[in-house]
Amino acid sequence: MESFYVPPDLIANGHLTIRDEEHHHITRVLRMNAGDTLRVVDGKGTAYVCRITSVSSHETVCTIDATQPLYNEPSLHVSLMFPILKNHNRIEWLVEKGTELGVAGFIPVATFRTVSNRLRIGRLRKIAAAAMKQCKRSLLPEIREETDLETLLQNEARTFDVIYIGDEERTDILRLGVGRQNLSGKRVLLLTGPEGGFTEEETALSINHGAVPVTLGRRRLRAETAALIMAANIITD
Amino acid sequence: MESFYVPPDLIANGHLTIRDEEHHHITRVLRMNAGDTLRVVDGKGTAYVCRITSVSSHETVCTIDATQPLYNEPSLHVSLMFPILKNHNRIEWLVEKGTELGVAGFIPVATFRTVSNRLRIGRLRKIAAAAMKQCKRSLLPEIREETDLETLLQNEARTFDVIYIGDEERTDILRLGVGRQNLSGKRVLLLTGPEGGFTEEETALSINHGAVPVTLGRRRLRAETAALIMAANIITD
Repeated sequence: MESFYVPPDLIANGHLTIRDEEHHHITRVLRMNAGDTLRVVDGKGTAYVCRITSVSSHETVCTIDATQPLYNEPSLHVSLMFPILKNHNRIEWLVEKGTELGVAGFIPVATFRTVSNRLRIGRLRKIAAAAMKQCKRSLLPEIREETDLETLLQNEARTFDVIYIGDEERTDILRLGVGRQNLSGKRVLLLTGPEGGFTEEETALSINHGAVPVTLGRRRLRAETAALIMAANIITD
Repeated sequence: MESFYVPPDLIANGHLTIRDEEHHHITRVLRMNAGDTLRVVDGKGTAYVCRITSVSSHETVCTIDATQPLYNEPSLHVSLMFPILKNHNRIEWLVEKGTELGVAGFIPVATFRTVSNRLRIGRLRKIAAAAMKQCKRSLLPEIREETDLETLLQNEARTFDVIYIGDEERTDILRLGVGRQNLSGKRVLLLTGPEGGFTEEETALSINHGAVPVTLGRRRLRAETAALIMAANIITD
């Protein structure tokens, strides 16, 4: 069964209304009709199994048969910080792949070794929405506005249960995912540096805010690979 | 220290000779001279720390100070089968990211649900070479010619110690990487299907040849994401 995306404000009282592109796809491309069954996700972590009750030229109305909370979502909540890279293609694939893996939020961060570079946040949000449907998730990952490392840590470090920071300089530390603790139900923030890494000051600042340094192995991963692999190593369901 | 790549036939008797692009990069871009130290990898799993002894217009000659076998290589040998995808960009990034992660060989495979599609093997080999240097590996992953699943299994299944097959239909099976066995020193083959998955016959054939089905979680990963994440979950050093 395909997944369709309907924002929560169009879901109420056991019914939901599908408009625009999704309506067009259902009625014109898939040629579905009253009585047909489909799965709708609200982008907030809930899926609905529903039946089409009426189709008009501009909307498809459905009645909800079953509600599936946290449908296909991992048991932990992962926010993935990533350095603002020069190459936007690399950011776009990180968002696509991270969404498939189950990341709940992406936080673009300026660091000492990143160059100032305006992201196309709207485009990243579209990529996340397409990937959410493709991989059958129910949560649309949040794509945050750009921030910087110090602001992120000062304002939000305390809102996470666990913070990991990838540290390519040290291999004597915990390999993420090996002997992993049970993170079920936890809010986790993952920090990875840009090309050239975090500065010593940035690493120290992160550790002061509670971040645990982890290694991702001996090889030097590109920034976007490191971010993705950190997520892959801790999202296990 | 940067890594440079020199094929094994230019390494002998405690000396090595650097030509072409690498020679140009060392002498013109980095402006290195006699006496400077650099690290050279042979693409076969060995790194050499060496000193430049002479620089001419067409080559840089070095004397080898130290030999580092299996430099930055994982302790297991992973061959990654991937389905021949329509979108070559996705194959290219799989090769780049898989090389960074430590994959030893890539095997493009036609399956029932792939379309026949000539790969640009030469281009993939260049991408692997660039990624090998970037991530400081010493082994240049082999990019194999296209084959089909049955031929691969019949000719080579017995040459591997362990074969895993990703199976998106079943979630009751082992999550790869959770409670992982010790694969150190083993030769491992990873199989993942195309969009739409392997057919039941292909999965059965693989299992008959000793493949162990594993799940990659509840979400439906794109073919290239699944392949990469399988590798990420078992290469731990």
